[in-house]
Amino acid sequence: MSFNTFGKIFRFTTWGESHGLAIGCIVDGCPPNVNIKEQDIQIELDKRKPGQSKFTTQRKEDDKVQILSGVFEGKTTGTPISLIIYNKDMKSRDYETIKNKFRPGHADFTYFKKYGIRDYRGGGRQSARETASRVAAGAIAKKVLENKIGKKFKVIGAVTQLGILGCDVKKWNDKTIRKNPFFCPDKSIVNLWKKYLLSIRKSGSSCGAIIEIRARGIPVGLGAPIYSKLDMDLASAMMSINAVKGVNIGSGMNSAQLTGEQNSDEISRRGKKLKFHSNNAGGILGGISTGQEIVVSFAVKPTSSILKSRKTIDKFGKNTSISVKGRHDPCVGIRAVPVGEAMLNCVLLDHYLLNKAQCGN
Amino acid sequence: MSFNTFGKIFRFTTWGESHGLAIGCIVDGCPPNVNIKEQDIQIELDKRKPGQSKFTTQRKEDDKVQILSGVFEGKTTGTPISLIIYNKDMKSRDYETIKNKFRPGHADFTYFKKYGIRDYRGGGRQSARETASRVAAGAIAKKVLENKIGKKFKVIGAVTQLGILGCDVKKWNDKTIRKNPFFCPDKSIVNLWKKYLLSIRKSGSSCGAIIEIRARGIPVGLGAPIYSKLDMDLASAMMSINAVKGVNIGSGMNSAQLTGEQNSDEISRRGKKLKFHSNNAGGILGGISTGQEIVVSFAVKPTSSILKSRKTIDKFGKNTSISVKGRHDPCVGIRAVPVGEAMLNCVLLDHYLLNKAQCGN
Amino acid sequence: MSFNTFGKIFRFTTWGESHGLAIGCIVDGCPPNVNIKEQDIQIELDKRKPGQSKFTTQRKEDDKVQILSGVFEGKTTGTPISLIIYNKDMKSRDYETIKNKFRPGHADFTYFKKYGIRDYRGGGRQSARETASRVAAGAIAKKVLENKIGKKFKVIGAVTQLGILGCDVKKWNDKTIRKNPFFCPDKSIVNLWKKYLLSIRKSGSSCGAIIEIRARGIPVGLGAPIYSKLDMDLASAMMSINAVKGVNIGSGMNSAQLTGEQNSDEISRRGKKLKFHSNNAGGILGGISTGQEIVVSFAVKPTSSILKSRKTIDKFGKNTSISVKGRHDPCVGIRAVPVGEAMLNCVLLDHYLLNKAQCGN
Amino acid sequence: MSFNTFGKIFRFTTWGESHGLAIGCIVDGCPPNVNIKEQDIQIELDKRKPGQSKFTTQRKEDDKVQILSGVFEGKTTGTPISLIIYNKDMKSRDYETIKNKFRPGHADFTYFKKYGIRDYRGGGRQSARETASRVAAGAIAKKVLENKIGKKFKVIGAVTQLGILGCDVKKWNDKTIRKNPFFCPDKSIVNLWKKYLLSIRKSGSSCGAIIEIRARGIPVGLGAPIYSKLDMDLASAMMSINAVKGVNIGSGMNSAQLTGEQNSDEISRRGKKLKFHSNNAGGILGGISTGQEIVVSFAVKPTSSILKSRKTIDKFGKNTSISVKGRHDPCVGIRAVPVGEAMLNCVLLDHYLLNKAQCGN
Repeated sequence: MSFNTFGKIFRFTTWGESHGLAIGCIVDGCPPNVNIKEQDIQIELDKRKPGQSKFTTQRKEDDKVQILSGVFEGKTTGTPISLIIYNKDMKSRDYETIKNKFRPGHADFTYFKKYGIRDYRGGGRQSARETASRVAAGAIAKKVLENKIGKKFKVIGAVTQLGILGCDVKKWNDKTIRKNPFFCPDKSIVNLWKKYLLSIRKSGSSCGAIIEIRARGIPVGLGAPIYSKLDMDLASAMMSINAVKGVNIGSGMNSAQLTGEQNSDEISRRGKKLKFHSNNAGGILGGISTGQEIVVSFAVKPTSSILKSRKTIDKFGKNTSISVKGRHDPCVGIRAVPVGEAMLNCVLLDHYLLNKAQCGN
Repeated sequence: MSFNTFGKIFRFTTWGESHGLAIGCIVDGCPPNVNIKEQDIQIELDKRKPGQSKFTTQRKEDDKVQILSGVFEGKTTGTPISLIIYNKDMKSRDYETIKNKFRPGHADFTYFKKYGIRDYRGGGRQSARETASRVAAGAIAKKVLENKIGKKFKVIGAVTQLGILGCDVKKWNDKTIRKNPFFCPDKSIVNLWKKYLLSIRKSGSSCGAIIEIRARGIPVGLGAPIYSKLDMDLASAMMSINAVKGVNIGSGMNSAQLTGEQNSDEISRRGKKLKFHSNNAGGILGGISTGQEIVVSFAVKPTSSILKSRKTIDKFGKNTSISVKGRHDPCVGIRAVPVGEAMLNCVLLDHYLLNKAQCGN
Repeated sequence: MSFNTFGKIFRFTTWGESHGLAIGCIVDGCPPNVNIKEQDIQIELDKRKPGQSKFTTQRKEDDKVQILSGVFEGKTTGTPISLIIYNKDMKSRDYETIKNKFRPGHADFTYFKKYGIRDYRGGGRQSARETASRVAAGAIAKKVLENKIGKKFKVIGAVTQLGILGCDVKKWNDKTIRKNPFFCPDKSIVNLWKKYLLSIRKSGSSCGAIIEIRARGIPVGLGAPIYSKLDMDLASAMMSINAVKGVNIGSGMNSAQLTGEQNSDEISRRGKKLKFHSNNAGGILGGISTGQEIVVSFAVKPTSSILKSRKTIDKFGKNTSISVKGRHDPCVGIRAVPVGEAMLNCVLLDHYLLNKAQCGN
Repeated sequence: MSFNTFGKIFRFTTWGESHGLAIGCIVDGCPPNVNIKEQDIQIELDKRKPGQSKFTTQRKEDDKVQILSGVFEGKTTGTPISLIIYNKDMKSRDYETIKNKFRPGHADFTYFKKYGIRDYRGGGRQSARETASRVAAGAIAKKVLENKIGKKFKVIGAVTQLGILGCDVKKWNDKTIRKNPFFCPDKSIVNLWKKYLLSIRKSGSSCGAIIEIRARGIPVGLGAPIYSKLDMDLASAMMSINAVKGVNIGSGMNSAQLTGEQNSDEISRRGKKLKFHSNNAGGILGGISTGQEIVVSFAVKPTSSILKSRKTIDKFGKNTSISVKGRHDPCVGIRAVPVGEAMLNCVLLDHYLLNKAQCGN
């Protein structure tokens, strides 16, 4: 049972609303004696921070994280790590006009029907602001994995499709990703994306995106059969991110179109080195990591808060329409990249620890 | 922690290997006083049973289920329901020749590397035979939901794409599904699929598939925010099925290509009736059911056991090749339909009970 | 898996060290639309607060609690409630002299051996200061139970034995409990306890205690058979409190000395009213509440931090001795009363919600 | 959430009713490559088996266990181990006369009120017959611990008090325990117990007992702070056993009467060897094992099924009386010894694996 907790052994529990005093999380099950400082977490949070380019929301949040417990003299102690981020730039008045209306595509309707009450300010708990807590937890997972696995370990994500414009995944370049406001891995399409997204924003609309996250240096054996499969937990992790509607592992939905011989990644050995000839499996077979690169991708639907008028009802059941004027991302998918990275880090660490428990490896 | 258990309140734990004495499951958390008889479970198992047409494996399993506990005088008592299905048509000798080889696309390699031991007969625990237990658990969930929600409740699945051949989802017809060996919902394409799959089989190859499961009559309010989202648990449920590589909710991966106004399902009211103008959300917003039809689809990769020769290594690390001659489904996706239905039933009941706990609804 | 989380549906996760910046907890799974204000929690915290009489530690903590999330316009929203209490009167220097020594009876040795690191200041995470978070969570559970069950619901605890001096439980008076510094329910022994505890304190020693918690107005049916028994969860709850070494339900350890006819509480009915002739069961049969008063008691060992010199070793393995001079309770059991009440409230609410899920009651 | 499941990583789920076809359990999370054969489990079951002396029930159950999955060529594979024990000597007719009456001290009343239905035959699910499944799971835990820790590991339990007659715990002798029908560790009192229990049985009454279980060879570091304490899980484990009403760790309830200097077990070192001068802590400090002997004891109330007539009501709410004539143990506590041993084995293995996960030790 885990309404607000994610994970099995390495677990984090998030709390907080968009326009409350603060948001934060508790990271539990973190191994002891790992160096963690606030700056390690801040670096990751800064990737997700709003207001960094004209392609994201203009809400100004410096998202400064504070460690309240669990770290002593710079090292984790094995006790829960409590992290807090104070909210700053809340303009709750923006939401007064829509507080009784259910924004289509948002959770306003379902939250209200389920709970009979909701904090409408900035979406309350349903706001993507919650994902900052995940990024903070993921930063800790990353440090632990680097400590346990070593330098070869790396998780990196990118936007591979922006609305109707896909990039060429074969041109994936890690360095490119950090050098453009879209986390785009393919240099050749960045300018086109700029023009496209500006036109989307100007028209008061929004667009969706596909994000791909890759993990390298992963040992064979993470994950467990049946209901603790690595890919099952990854699907769960990614689908838990706001606005995500689809998740692929490796060839994903496309694998339906492959034949058996196309799909089954052949294996051979040269010297001491094992080689898979392809990676349709996305680095996971039978729910367990193969040692190949782990590849997970997911679709983020277009931002539901748009200027264009949409039909809806209010909480009294009356027909009305809505046009959302707040500060919104024209493509929320972009800022989902560090969130996806964080979730992948957390799932990997969780299974790393679980593998120790189950097999002593 | 749940290596072999699925669910939160309504939970089932499966056990058993392909060529062991039996397989089975324990269903826990089932509400009391619901009528259940073996025949209710058998009906669902019969949908998944192998050997029913030339398009599935020729292994002969009657898959007769026996209730060992938890039902008294025809009614559930609230205590765990233990179900057992004895294995019959095991031809373990078929696997002798490949017992030291890792079949590409299968979990042979990862299981062996992780555990240092594996039951190679018929894939052991990694065999899709485990899914019979899920179907049995799902049959119980279905009975409970029918008891609690009533006649309007219905879960039904279909194959919507067979290899490279998609069907027209707009022609979906529940009755058609039960009348062809593919669970195809679109009558107009059944003959083409027959020819296509026969040719696949003849060539010693296999193909993938896309399965779509729909649930109707679902009340508003199932699911909970953040880490107990209904779609998150559905993604987890479907990705836990053998050979599944991608999961979509509603528009799924396609939602990346939509604009905000295309995607946000408008709402209006006529008389007492609420109407959503579209269902890109697949019946779920913010992780909570909207009352619309719930639509989840997933891709099953092509059967990895094929006649065509594939390069691989053996457990001693030597290069070799493999051609699998056992009795295999040319498209395992077909028999995944009742499994997907079962998983959807289980997730829905679980959240139905959880909602009672959280909101008393 | 729950290193720092307690509960199944109504769950709380605590964090924080004795001498860190703050302590706190997240309460998850709380039903929506229940009135909660900081003052409701503060009242309970004030019962546990140190420095209220000369019979408890002189550390000055005002233990002011702040609600950071989950409550909107005075009502719970169903989202996680984050509570924080800043630490104030930390005298970490007191602990410098003993930072390398393992205090006998404390967790110093085991924490260090397990984690290879520990925050020695004030016991760090092992400090009973963590229990303030439980009291805060329990205050919320209490409010919810009052809201759901109504006025007849009441949980009240008392010290029934102080060191070698037991009180007469038959003289239990709720009002007496709040009028003396020992939570003693028997007026006739209060003065004797005062003299006894002063002599204990003067001698630089400490003593143990037995605490008994009672719950009234509990409906029949809370708890579930086998591994979700109400008494099992109560034993777990009470044993999780620092320094607790034994837990009894009803007649508890004494039931070993009873005969079958003495022990089996007879039942009869007069008019509409069911009557149990005795309550050896402590209100629980087969793990499920009977509707009688629930009675749980537990033993708290004497405070391990004493002035008297004790033999021990230091972290380098050298023999040494220790005499602890900080500000300590001569009997930590006294302040365990509100903690026990809180845990009982939490367990009862958890099972109240679970019963809704399982049986719809 | 775990109605019928116990444990965190090493988990077992039991099923079955007293007079159903069979009972059994699934053991999940068992490490791979450990030798297990049915005989290893049978040895433990035989200790609990009824009808072995005139001091236990005369129901004849040979309690033959069968392994249905999870073991391949004599070794565990890391997949779930399914165990089944068929019921044989059911005399359901014995229960016809009492099927509508609530036996005082039994769970008849609470089960019926909670679930609105119950299998009354032999107590159904509430029967102590369920504990056979625990003993089977414990046998597997024991084998794994012997494999991981080695020969120095030993868990052994005894009855230390039979009704009003305590034994001298200082005379504890492991060999004595196996040589008398009471699991009594003190040879000098065995004859007295025989006479006492015969007189109890003749009078149609019953008596309670105290059971003490000891674990030796346990490494330092098992258990985790706050809500995963080893003693917390032991309290939970023991209180989950039918008819248990109290649990002590080390000095337990008696620790209330000790002074700080009496209670705090001093530590010193001679050569390389660490020595605790006493063991009031029962081998656990701050929820973590110290490396000393772990000592847990618990009280089992007297058998509620007695010949003597007791007042009660029936399911229609009418006053009546009951005298139970079936085949019952005059002291169910005796057969609780192997059950307590099993639970201790399971908890220890669970924390052993958890420690690997958390600290890599």
